Amino acid sequence: MSAKVVPFKPEQPERAPSLDPMLAQTASAMNAVNTVILDRMQSEIPLIPSLAGHLIAGGGKRLRPMLTLAGADLIGYQGTRHHKLAAAVEFIHTATLLHDDVVDGSDLRRGKAAANIIFGNPATVLVGDFLFSRAFELMVEDGSLKVLKILSGASAIIAEGEVDQLTAQRQIETSEERYLSIIGAKTAALFAAASRIAAVVAERGDAEERALDDYGRNLGIAFQLVDDAIDYSSSAAEMGKTRGDDFREGKMTLPVILAYARGDEDERRFWKAAIGGHRTTPEDLAHAIRLIERHDAVAATRERARHFAERAVDALAIFPESKARMAMAEAARFAVSRGY
Amino acid sequence: MSAKVVPFKPEQPERAPSLDPMLAQTASAMNAVNTVILDRMQSEIPLIPSLAGHLIAGGGKRLRPMLTLAGADLIGYQGTRHHKLAAAVEFIHTATLLHDDVVDGSDLRRGKAAANIIFGNPATVLVGDFLFSRAFELMVEDGSLKVLKILSGASAIIAEGEVDQLTAQRQIETSEERYLSIIGAKTAALFAAASRIAAVVAERGDAEERALDDYGRNLGIAFQLVDDAIDYSSSAAEMGKTRGDDFREGKMTLPVILAYARGDEDERRFWKAAIGGHRTTPEDLAHAIRLIERHDAVAATRERARHFAERAVDALAIFPESKARMAMAEAARFAVSRGY
Repeated sequence: MSAKVVPFKPEQPERAPSLDPMLAQTASAMNAVNTVILDRMQSEIPLIPSLAGHLIAGGGKRLRPMLTLAGADLIGYQGTRHHKLAAAVEFIHTATLLHDDVVDGSDLRRGKAAANIIFGNPATVLVGDFLFSRAFELMVEDGSLKVLKILSGASAIIAEGEVDQLTAQRQIETSEERYLSIIGAKTAALFAAASRIAAVVAERGDAEERALDDYGRNLGIAFQLVDDAIDYSSSAAEMGKTRGDDFREGKMTLPVILAYARGDEDERRFWKAAIGGHRTTPEDLAHAIRLIERHDAVAATRERARHFAERAVDALAIFPESKARMAMAEAARFAVSRGY
Repeated sequence: MSAKVVPFKPEQPERAPSLDPMLAQTASAMNAVNTVILDRMQSEIPLIPSLAGHLIAGGGKRLRPMLTLAGADLIGYQGTRHHKLAAAVEFIHTATLLHDDVVDGSDLRRGKAAANIIFGNPATVLVGDFLFSRAFELMVEDGSLKVLKILSGASAIIAEGEVDQLTAQRQIETSEERYLSIIGAKTAALFAAASRIAAVVAERGDAEERALDDYGRNLGIAFQLVDDAIDYSSSAAEMGKTRGDDFREGKMTLPVILAYARGDEDERRFWKAAIGGHRTTPEDLAHAIRLIERHDAVAATRERARHFAERAVDALAIFPESKARMAMAEAARFAVSRGY
């Protein structure tokens, strides 16, 4: 994709977009967030911190709380309220990951055995509930009803998106529009909320809130699109999950939707059988990947992602140029380029 | 138990304690709560209202929201804020039931097939998450940070109690103290919170809040004790769940804890094998029930329940005598006597 990337500052040497500037920008605040996370995942019931810690300490990028921190930096917020709220965002995300692993029967998460494999489904469900409740306790401690409204609303939308995804599973006729609505809910709603609350704690106006919401939402969509592209293009080691998971689970992600739409009758017969769960061997997966490549469906998925990433970058235009804004724009470009 | 019951009004003819007075007292407000419940369990994703409705419309007693309504009545609250909050309480409860059914692999709930059996574990987990989020949305709409604090705190404690119960499963050495701590968290915390918030919306003082909290908490403990007694003493039809579930799952409930404590070496060997999951046939269950009867462990469990029910009744003493108070006191006595 590098040919089309226009760096913010022309003098900057062209290089692959990276998350590093945003990581550097937020590193010191993230230490404070990590302290809150480690402190508030504790419980007198020892299974809770061990299970939660397995995932939380397990090398996630903390991308969602990072958006809260980067947004606060962008608008020059000087306080520390966002540390607790960023931790709440990460707890909500962790709770959904734990429940996802149970829902999907995952084997791997972030390259390690998923929590449900080690601790079983019951404990995984319940510790998810615990973290979800803790997230709300953190928000209540902060005391902003506006933040509570944004994050409880996002949580309900995430759950709706997850149920919708479940309903669409093994449904070959799922459209691109429905797919976008699903990922807009299950993934992008929390990205949007995480970004938006930075403007809320800083007590900025509606325009800033909306701009950060737009940034986060579009970034989230781009992020999920690329995740779904990678599942048909990379190795399990890169992805931290098992390649072909979506294929075996009959998830209607965009690479499949496009390959099916662009395929001939023979190919469509294959896709119906595969998504229906009747052709899920490694050979079937290899065949699926060949069909996806034949129709450039992974590349097209990345192109769609680029579109949303560009919208994310442009949403930041209302803020003055700054290191924070450059880092956030580069994060959006990184979302598109990663996994190549 | 009738010999020991002292009715509030001596002129009232002695009869078995019943929930009917509390049902009558709260009937009209409960209609309003049901409207909120039915309205707010809706979603554009059709699976959500069908799954939620299966349980919500499935004939539960709405005991927890009833406590909020009865409490409001007791203190003469004239507004309607508690309708939404009572619905939020029921949503939290429903979410935990859905997750419990997945955790326990239940077949029956309230005498019908459990949601996980009909809709599968994935949808059941996710709709639980949705209802939980909706509960918080309802609280945010109400706007009381104090109520949010009470109910988010209770939710975290419920999850801790459930995890603790999971940890104690198949652990024959579980003590009565640990058992009381588990049911205090997994059941009584929500009873306490549901009652307490009535005093919060009415903006009464700490004493009223604490009294209602004490009432709810002790009632919840009594209620769970009797539930656990019934699992060794009644038919599945009465209970709405399969008799012997706790036995087969190796749950350390008080009837087992007492029978084990009071048993001889032979009996203890049996209990270790049974709770360990090695003796779970219908004959084993019949033998377990005989041992429990030999040591009056069901009757002792009910006696423990009576103790907590009496504490619940006495907690109401700070409120003037009223129909509402009588109904709440009778509900506590009913909690002990039901299922005989």
